[in-house]
Amino acid sequence: MKRWWRTGATLLVGAGLGASVSRLLNVRGGEEEAENAGLLSRVPVLPVPSVQASELTVSPGGSGVVMKYGFPSLTNIKTRESYVTSYDPRTRTASWVIERLNPATLNGQSDRKYCEFKEDDSVHVFHRATNADYRGSGFDRGHMAAAANHKWSQKAMEDTFYLSNVAPQNPHLNQKTWNNLEKMCRTLTKRYLNVYVCTGPLYLPRQEADGKLYVRYQVLGQNNVAVPTHFFKVLILEQADGRGVELRSYVLPNEPVDEKVPLERFLVPIETIERASGLLFVPNIMKRTSSLQAITNR
Amino acid sequence: MKRWWRTGATLLVGAGLGASVSRLLNVRGGEEEAENAGLLSRVPVLPVPSVQASELTVSPGGSGVVMKYGFPSLTNIKTRESYVTSYDPRTRTASWVIERLNPATLNGQSDRKYCEFKEDDSVHVFHRATNADYRGSGFDRGHMAAAANHKWSQKAMEDTFYLSNVAPQNPHLNQKTWNNLEKMCRTLTKRYLNVYVCTGPLYLPRQEADGKLYVRYQVLGQNNVAVPTHFFKVLILEQADGRGVELRSYVLPNEPVDEKVPLERFLVPIETIERASGLLFVPNIMKRTSSLQAITNR
Repeated sequence: MKRWWRTGATLLVGAGLGASVSRLLNVRGGEEEAENAGLLSRVPVLPVPSVQASELTVSPGGSGVVMKYGFPSLTNIKTRESYVTSYDPRTRTASWVIERLNPATLNGQSDRKYCEFKEDDSVHVFHRATNADYRGSGFDRGHMAAAANHKWSQKAMEDTFYLSNVAPQNPHLNQKTWNNLEKMCRTLTKRYLNVYVCTGPLYLPRQEADGKLYVRYQVLGQNNVAVPTHFFKVLILEQADGRGVELRSYVLPNEPVDEKVPLERFLVPIETIERASGLLFVPNIMKRTSSLQAITNR
Repeated sequence: MKRWWRTGATLLVGAGLGASVSRLLNVRGGEEEAENAGLLSRVPVLPVPSVQASELTVSPGGSGVVMKYGFPSLTNIKTRESYVTSYDPRTRTASWVIERLNPATLNGQSDRKYCEFKEDDSVHVFHRATNADYRGSGFDRGHMAAAANHKWSQKAMEDTFYLSNVAPQNPHLNQKTWNNLEKMCRTLTKRYLNVYVCTGPLYLPRQEADGKLYVRYQVLGQNNVAVPTHFFKVLILEQADGRGVELRSYVLPNEPVDEKVPLERFLVPIETIERASGLLFVPNIMKRTSSLQAITNR
């Protein structure tokens, strides 16, 4: 693993990281494919010159604490018991979902068997995913904020079943490697004061036979719910001793991934996610800490 | 042409319109193709139950007047001399651009020869299109708010040359049929008090060989600027005698279109654009008038 630190306003990431990303994202079934990864093979590493996203203030309690490290974007923000999310009415899924995990959120009597996936009626009917859109599609209704992260309250767990917190996910990925990534997030609560998790879809380009780059993704059902090509998970880890903040950012393809591949293989520089998603993380995090340590594979 | 009226909260559009859309959008070189139009062939016509978009108030003067009929979305709003726009940092183009045309905006001494396409440095460098992205791509830098609509002020015209007011456009379309559509908008200022024009990109799904629907679009340059599959133009026409508001909404494919095809053939129900774009127009317009008359082809 490679670690980099950012203090103050200077981003000290070697350009070599960008090059390693394309390799990482082609991990599949334990083999690295040499194929062109489109966008990711050509991501230069640049400094972050200014803050584009949230200037919203954070309230000391309630759902405000979830957003301590800022809003990656300010579009259609919804605040729920267990998470805060930004909805994309064009794709009919979230752009991002942020939750805060610690031992208190993980423990409780809440039971998934009382939860059902449900339409989000706060979304206009033109732009809303329904259970019927997923039925027979071959895709799971993949949680962005995971249900098992919110055992502390039945309501908090139920809120993760809104289809606005869900995206079409390959069943093998959802039930195997993605599930392992979610478990790892929960395990990290033993080592860190708080684990902030931001999850969302990506639509990454690929080079096609004509040599040009294309974004291509399936859409499901009457409402054309977009099937992401990849998913990201950004972890903001608060060190218990107040030394600072650690950052881990993952990108996984929306396809079967061999469970034997170590999760660290899916670590990418945060900038890769910031560029591809249209979101910003680092400028907001830097408002809250003078010591940001990013962990990336090499 | 078919006309429909909406008064109060009831949307009275026959389902037959939805069916005609798929036919209209396949107009190409004057011929109607029988192929599946993806999303558009399956658009049911539903009532609009609630307002999702802007609740922002409109100021009586300045750029506020441009937004009299509301904000189709509230994402990354930028106000310029000649238009108001919502930027999509993921596609590196506008989601929509709204301008207001009348004889006063169309006339003046402004000259295009003093204008140059320029990066929008109000957009984070990770999410910004550059001239280099377009170079050699085979696509024009297609204006959303047209330069020739803003002869009233050199600054207003120059502002249309921000690359955030631009999307990759097929050169034939840009220079022929799209140009004719822009001219038609200007001509309408002779008959209407004000012509509000909202323009933006669409990314429409198509059925592929496996029978499933996919969205597929090219991306250009180092910054992966998205090439829309289609463009929309929504015209909100204020009748001079105060009788109400007329609505015309067009969708054109981002490919060569025979100039001999009448522009009315590209009229679609506004709902088609609202569903595909993730934007809302009608609920906002209805706050400003009790008589909305939509014009669609049949």
